Amino acid sequence: MVVTAVRAADSRQRFIDAAISLFARHSFAGTSLQMIADEVGVTKSAVHHHFRTREELLNAVIEPVLGGLQAAVEAAEGQRGRRARAERMLTGVVDLAVRNRMLVPMLVGDPGAIEMLRSRTEVGELANRLNMLLADIDPGVGGWIKADMVMAGIAGGMSARTSGLDDDVLRRHLIEASRRTLGLRAPRGLR
Amino acid sequence: MVVTAVRAADSRQRFIDAAISLFARHSFAGTSLQMIADEVGVTKSAVHHHFRTREELLNAVIEPVLGGLQAAVEAAEGQRGRRARAERMLTGVVDLAVRNRMLVPMLVGDPGAIEMLRSRTEVGELANRLNMLLADIDPGVGGWIKADMVMAGIAGGMSARTSGLDDDVLRRHLIEASRRTLGLRAPRGLR
Repeated sequence: MVVTAVRAADSRQRFIDAAISLFARHSFAGTSLQMIADEVGVTKSAVHHHFRTREELLNAVIEPVLGGLQAAVEAAEGQRGRRARAERMLTGVVDLAVRNRMLVPMLVGDPGAIEMLRSRTEVGELANRLNMLLADIDPGVGGWIKADMVMAGIAGGMSARTSGLDDDVLRRHLIEASRRTLGLRAPRGLR
Repeated sequence: MVVTAVRAADSRQRFIDAAISLFARHSFAGTSLQMIADEVGVTKSAVHHHFRTREELLNAVIEPVLGGLQAAVEAAEGQRGRRARAERMLTGVVDLAVRNRMLVPMLVGDPGAIEMLRSRTEVGELANRLNMLLADIDPGVGGWIKADMVMAGIAGGMSARTSGLDDDVLRRHLIEASRRTLGLRAPRGLR
């Protein structure tokens, strides 16, 4: 029983990993369950056993990212002071983006993925809380523009050109540049 | 003769304006020549007289932006010193983006428009020269990441949320935040 459950979770994850790689190469709309089956080397009905549609697979791909985003927003909101909240939000979102490097271009650029994200109301709500935490450093329109610029900039800084960089190096550059954009000093001990 | 030429140029521009508005609402792939004819209030054959395909219309929409980008890159390359070059490139690209506010989301987010831009070799070449001018402030990987972040950030800072802002206010915010990201001081007299 235990072994069967582990195997089921294991093949479920293999389909998710194959989907991430195929969505990145062929877009969500350009990827079929058959292609995912071929990539893993199983029949389409083996995929069907776990995911009936590619939408279900996309949701399974996105789920851990949304969970991570929710946790990062909540951790930031729990800080005292708007600078501490913005700093925690920034590092949280960069950590999450770097941990999901392969997914970021899809989440911000694939029309199918964007449509799916827009259809989930919690995504808009989380994005608002995130933006508010970053924008609060400079109340008013300037803060909102900088928050938008930082969020777009983090995704843009993870382009093909940086794909060979270590996670840690990329993370450090993204955080440093975003702090400057927002006008956030590095926390004590990290300057 | 002169009147006829003016009228032809005039209706050509009306089709281009209608295309910009429809591409923004329905995407390039979701806009037909018939929709453009309907928007202007003419027959499809009247559109056909100027543009045989929507690809031709998209090229006509993009052409002045590419011309402006080329001029901005050349003006920046003509400056002395890498800070002056980066500053001129930054203000040039923000001016161009703000002047083409309605087009920017399409140029960075519409798959059909992106495909068209990618197919034109001069676009990649201009983008490289632009990025080099911005990245040169901080030679190495950090400079490239910041240049990517600034370019994505400028587009991201022109989101729906800022659509009500004056061009001048938006322009100033985008330039100030981008200068901070790049580590560029405002030129003398503007501090």
